[in-house]
Amino acid sequence: MIVMPTFMDVHGGFAGATPQELAAAHEADLAFAAEEGVHLERGWLDPASGLVFRLARGPSREAVLRVHERAGHPATEVYELPIDLLQDAPAAIMA
Amino acid sequence: MIVMPTFMDVHGGFAGATPQELAAAHEADLAFAAEEGVHLERGWLDPASGLVFRLARGPSREAVLRVHERAGHPATEVYELPIDLLQDAPAAIMA
Repeated sequence: MIVMPTFMDVHGGFAGATPQELAAAHEADLAFAAEEGVHLERGWLDPASGLVFRLARGPSREAVLRVHERAGHPATEVYELPIDLLQDAPAAIMA
Repeated sequence: MIVMPTFMDVHGGFAGATPQELAAAHEADLAFAAEEGVHLERGWLDPASGLVFRLARGPSREAVLRVHERAGHPATEVYELPIDLLQDAPAAIMA
């Protein structure tokens, strides 16, 4: 099994978003993610700050960025997360 | 079943951390989390930026902050995430 890298993207601008806007953004993400080979694993919204956190696996940082650009809400930050602190630690971290 | 709120905390300062330092931080978090009633669900490190993302459930934002303060690596940012975009959407978001 090929395991693709994990990414966290953080983007703002969703403060005051309506349920309809959130649902539309989510649908757009899903469509473009499929085209880019990106699997959206989890996603959360903090309505107070308007920040969305998305956890995804994909072939590259660029692919993750393209999903959000094409969906019309470019990610502010994308971080590659090669170390899973709970699943890898302590054995793999200590290796 | 009582479901506690979900939080994401983001904290820096782990660029160049050794495996031993990561493991020690993780062990300290686990000990204090148990005392504060916080359940650490996931955690990831981006070695390039030194940022750690932690996903946790707990009784309050203050409890999550206390875990990291007591463990010696205060969280820079803590976000409460009442909306799970993938699990809730679109039905619950639209409700």
